[in-house]
Amino acid sequence: MDSVLRQSKAMCPFMMKATAAGLRAMSTATPTAVSPGGGAMSKLQVLARRCPIMGKAMAVQSARIGHAGGFSSVAAKAGMATFHGHGKTGKAKLHTTRSQEAQPVDGSVFSGHEKVQLPPRLPTKQHAGASPAATTRPGAPDSHAAKFDYEGFYNRELDRKHKDKSYRYFNNINRLAKEFPRAHMASKEDKVTVWCANDYLGMGRNSHVLKAMHETLDEYGAGAGGTRNISGHNKHAVELEQTIAKLHAQDAALVFSSCYVANDATLATLGSKMPDCVILSDSLNHASMIQGIRHSGAKKVIFKHNDVQDLEEKLAALPLHVPKIIAFESVYSMCGSIGPIEEICDLADKYGAITFLDEVHAVGMYGPHGAGVAEHLDYEAHAQGRPRGTIMDRIDIITGTLGKAYGCVGGYIAGSAKLVDTVRSLAPGFIFTTSLPPSVMAGARAAIEYQMEHQGDRRLQQLHTRAVKEALQERGIPVIPNPSHIVPILVGNAELAKQASDKLLQDYGIYVQSINYPTVPVGQERLRVTPTPGHTKAYREELVSAIESIWTELGIKRTSEWAAEGGFIGVGVPDAAPEEPLWTDEQLGIAEAARTLLQAAQAEQKLNAAADAPLTGGLTERLLEREMKGLRSASVAA
Amino acid sequence: MDSVLRQSKAMCPFMMKATAAGLRAMSTATPTAVSPGGGAMSKLQVLARRCPIMGKAMAVQSARIGHAGGFSSVAAKAGMATFHGHGKTGKAKLHTTRSQEAQPVDGSVFSGHEKVQLPPRLPTKQHAGASPAATTRPGAPDSHAAKFDYEGFYNRELDRKHKDKSYRYFNNINRLAKEFPRAHMASKEDKVTVWCANDYLGMGRNSHVLKAMHETLDEYGAGAGGTRNISGHNKHAVELEQTIAKLHAQDAALVFSSCYVANDATLATLGSKMPDCVILSDSLNHASMIQGIRHSGAKKVIFKHNDVQDLEEKLAALPLHVPKIIAFESVYSMCGSIGPIEEICDLADKYGAITFLDEVHAVGMYGPHGAGVAEHLDYEAHAQGRPRGTIMDRIDIITGTLGKAYGCVGGYIAGSAKLVDTVRSLAPGFIFTTSLPPSVMAGARAAIEYQMEHQGDRRLQQLHTRAVKEALQERGIPVIPNPSHIVPILVGNAELAKQASDKLLQDYGIYVQSINYPTVPVGQERLRVTPTPGHTKAYREELVSAIESIWTELGIKRTSEWAAEGGFIGVGVPDAAPEEPLWTDEQLGIAEAARTLLQAAQAEQKLNAAADAPLTGGLTERLLEREMKGLRSASVAA
Repeated sequence: MDSVLRQSKAMCPFMMKATAAGLRAMSTATPTAVSPGGGAMSKLQVLARRCPIMGKAMAVQSARIGHAGGFSSVAAKAGMATFHGHGKTGKAKLHTTRSQEAQPVDGSVFSGHEKVQLPPRLPTKQHAGASPAATTRPGAPDSHAAKFDYEGFYNRELDRKHKDKSYRYFNNINRLAKEFPRAHMASKEDKVTVWCANDYLGMGRNSHVLKAMHETLDEYGAGAGGTRNISGHNKHAVELEQTIAKLHAQDAALVFSSCYVANDATLATLGSKMPDCVILSDSLNHASMIQGIRHSGAKKVIFKHNDVQDLEEKLAALPLHVPKIIAFESVYSMCGSIGPIEEICDLADKYGAITFLDEVHAVGMYGPHGAGVAEHLDYEAHAQGRPRGTIMDRIDIITGTLGKAYGCVGGYIAGSAKLVDTVRSLAPGFIFTTSLPPSVMAGARAAIEYQMEHQGDRRLQQLHTRAVKEALQERGIPVIPNPSHIVPILVGNAELAKQASDKLLQDYGIYVQSINYPTVPVGQERLRVTPTPGHTKAYREELVSAIESIWTELGIKRTSEWAAEGGFIGVGVPDAAPEEPLWTDEQLGIAEAARTLLQAAQAEQKLNAAADAPLTGGLTERLLEREMKGLRSASVAA
Repeated sequence: MDSVLRQSKAMCPFMMKATAAGLRAMSTATPTAVSPGGGAMSKLQVLARRCPIMGKAMAVQSARIGHAGGFSSVAAKAGMATFHGHGKTGKAKLHTTRSQEAQPVDGSVFSGHEKVQLPPRLPTKQHAGASPAATTRPGAPDSHAAKFDYEGFYNRELDRKHKDKSYRYFNNINRLAKEFPRAHMASKEDKVTVWCANDYLGMGRNSHVLKAMHETLDEYGAGAGGTRNISGHNKHAVELEQTIAKLHAQDAALVFSSCYVANDATLATLGSKMPDCVILSDSLNHASMIQGIRHSGAKKVIFKHNDVQDLEEKLAALPLHVPKIIAFESVYSMCGSIGPIEEICDLADKYGAITFLDEVHAVGMYGPHGAGVAEHLDYEAHAQGRPRGTIMDRIDIITGTLGKAYGCVGGYIAGSAKLVDTVRSLAPGFIFTTSLPPSVMAGARAAIEYQMEHQGDRRLQQLHTRAVKEALQERGIPVIPNPSHIVPILVGNAELAKQASDKLLQDYGIYVQSINYPTVPVGQERLRVTPTPGHTKAYREELVSAIESIWTELGIKRTSEWAAEGGFIGVGVPDAAPEEPLWTDEQLGIAEAARTLLQAAQAEQKLNAAADAPLTGGLTERLLEREMKGLRSASVAA
């Protein structure tokens, strides 16, 4: 037996590679809440369940001994120390006698019944004590075993969320179309200013969008009435997909219930269908992509966030002919960083990969037509209607949402005709679900078309973002630097972040949701502020002043304090190069406005004061006052 | 080496159980199109990739030799015959020399470079010829290897869909709210009658629903603006979830983008989080449940469709304490069969399982309040407002849609407060996606509330269903018998089913989508007709007459022909007991109406004729004419 075990250990690539410390870590770590692969099981158990030897053995063991700790005994048999106890379990007996022959039906030789170490957190009652598993009869369910305690399981899962401060309390926020960006709470009288919605441009109350929706509702009713294949395909879907394809200068597009579903279904389908596919995934990718990759069953290679060198090393290690998908985002919504799109396209070309770019937080917001960051990178070419050969043209799969800057709901992919037709034909998450309502599709199309023609909303949004960032930075509030429209304010503590959010709402009538684990790592908790064209000066001053008061009141660290510690995730980092915004001064028309302002100041003999002033909040605010009227009258519909 | 291999084969539960024939079958079979686990790979390859030994070995082999056929060589090394060629590959050499020592970093001893049999359908160019893999240098990518041909892959996937007739052509159907059940095609002038939508009750054009949606659009705008946690939670969500909980007499409910997402996310979350969870799944379950189970990674046990005995055998074989979910439907939408809900609840109690009941095709349609089949089974108790102790009360998780009988879009689960809170807290598919628009939630709530108070639509729908079934049966058109509102008409051939559907549309202006593989098994292709309250007599006569003509013209088998073959899936089965509709004559008020009719006939001395007539289409039609006005005026809003 010993030689078999030694040899089989030599054959198992997992065991060969694993260190004792690694195994121990895996046996105590549980997967995060966002991952449906784990839960109350250790990572080691999750991995073991995927192994045809260990997995089967665990199931058989479990069935025979009547408990869930099969893996420990298997590990014990395999001569491994068992790590599931409370750190004090020794090496289990290696030489045991089998009580019966292995049954071919069960398909496992692991049928011994030695006493085993139970894994921690086993939920059912019979696990509470140290009941000797050896007393149960093989092949028959344990007559002493109780049924699984489902409510107990739910309670434990919820308790864990409460304990690690990741339990979510939803705020009842009713955003008012006619008082944007205001909302009422549960009571209509209780009004607040919303500072964290993803309706970045206020398109949810845009008159063109609402008109299209009202008309479509009246003419075509509330719902689509079926899947795309069975009576749910209509002109609204056709027109919306044509508009999306045009927006991204791609052949075709496909609309899904949401971009969560679009990402999940597309990656799961391509990753599972392409033989030996490898998906290379940015470490900060959204949950929907992580799920899609998991669901694909394809090999997943995570590369460091926005690290092109790391990505190249990982691509170079893979055979050239193997299909590869590089999945990444343009704007990472929780930190506002922007992906190196062009470099990733270059690498994809070099190593025979295709690119999967999530522009969810960028569509409507960047580029002359609002097609996203990829369009923005060739601003002039796209402004002149020459998309061919641009970076956006090189992307294989662009995914986007209709639920953020476009103000509605739904998601999509855009790409080559054959790619889109393949996903259309194979993805269960597209095929077997009811289409979006005609009115939603009509509204989304109206929003995209409006934003293709109007620059004002996204420019004003950028100007407001600059003004907020500058004002906060002037007051020493730690904004995590980034080139995008996201204003992440570092708190660094789950409890404090929630308190700050609650105080903003209760004491100041300002709604900014705190962002805690698992959306961001523990220790990086933050407030995430999203300015819109509607957040005019008075709102901005309110916000900045409220945050400053709360920072003082709760003693939350300021930039200087982070700097004293050497800086953290970009905040207070000594000698850091400033993050240049993606929207340049030129593109925003700031330079021209600043020149005008300077000339006016010179004329008033206030040259020195104005010339000394850098482009601070003060100046942005003054520019905004001048620009606002022009921009708004040119672009924002009543 | 030989003894290691023999012993490792003895240790591998998969190899121990597998027969040569089974392995051969798996090596040629490819998973179906709906399953993202397979694609161009054989089932054996898919399985092998999940094995930590074979999977790793395949990857390493693939990386070294520069092709995707790693498994064959691994199989060869393991002394297995290779099955991947074209049936003529012999046993590969067992004794080979390794060209170098195994590298711990690669973690595999399978580093030999013997010639290997390539699997069929390998997509990249270098696999087309018989290029000797042995010429490539280990550790370096094959310099001769081409990049993966992505467009070629898409083309092959699409070709396969065309070849097996499962490629879908969408019909452009624009259902007209004011001319229900009429729609226009791409051109507004080109009108058809829709006979296959899932807007079963016409709620998509119900005035209460539309009013709620218009008002909500005006007041709260187009979209929710965020996830439920970040500014997307509002009174519409709260009220809708309260209404759903009340409808199903459960503690709580949770709304998702769709019921596809609800099923997928709930099963994936519970199945992965509950330790050692086993999910028992009806063989005809919807794709969304199949995906959810797959995504959970839990053990899946399929029981025969609606077969309580088979389910019990499978439950009895599992340890009592292990968590188990029985996932099933109330109305199976493609055949119209109805699940044995009460018996399954009994089994769940007996074996310590929880029940997951998909009422997607039943909500709005059954029960005194439209809560579904589970409510219908205790019709009187629910009609009197006594839900406690009923079958519906015993279900642990009910899932439903807002996109079919309720005419909008979206899906939900209902259950205990802790269960719902657990799913709310853990399911990525719920957490990380934008909420449904306020107007959609308001419209859906209006639809549910309307149907809780009005019986007319669903009774009329049932009467129309009976009339259609009777009229078709009288003409020998093979309706697959069932107790529900679904009218599945057996064609039994993909090509003919599509032709019949196309002819109905082109020649008769009637839209009934053909249902082909993979939605139904090959050989069971059908037309699926769904009557609504709007399908009044003239529409029904048109439909029946058109179908009869097409059946004759295309030579599609009639019931008598199926009977001559001994019957098939319920059609033409000799001496089969008639399927009693779930809505009884009493519940529909038919008995009373029939009595009145009989009395009238007696009074007119037409006793004999009327008494001889069974409850055929003729009678149902006559009853309908009487009942219609009363029902409609009592229930359907203009």
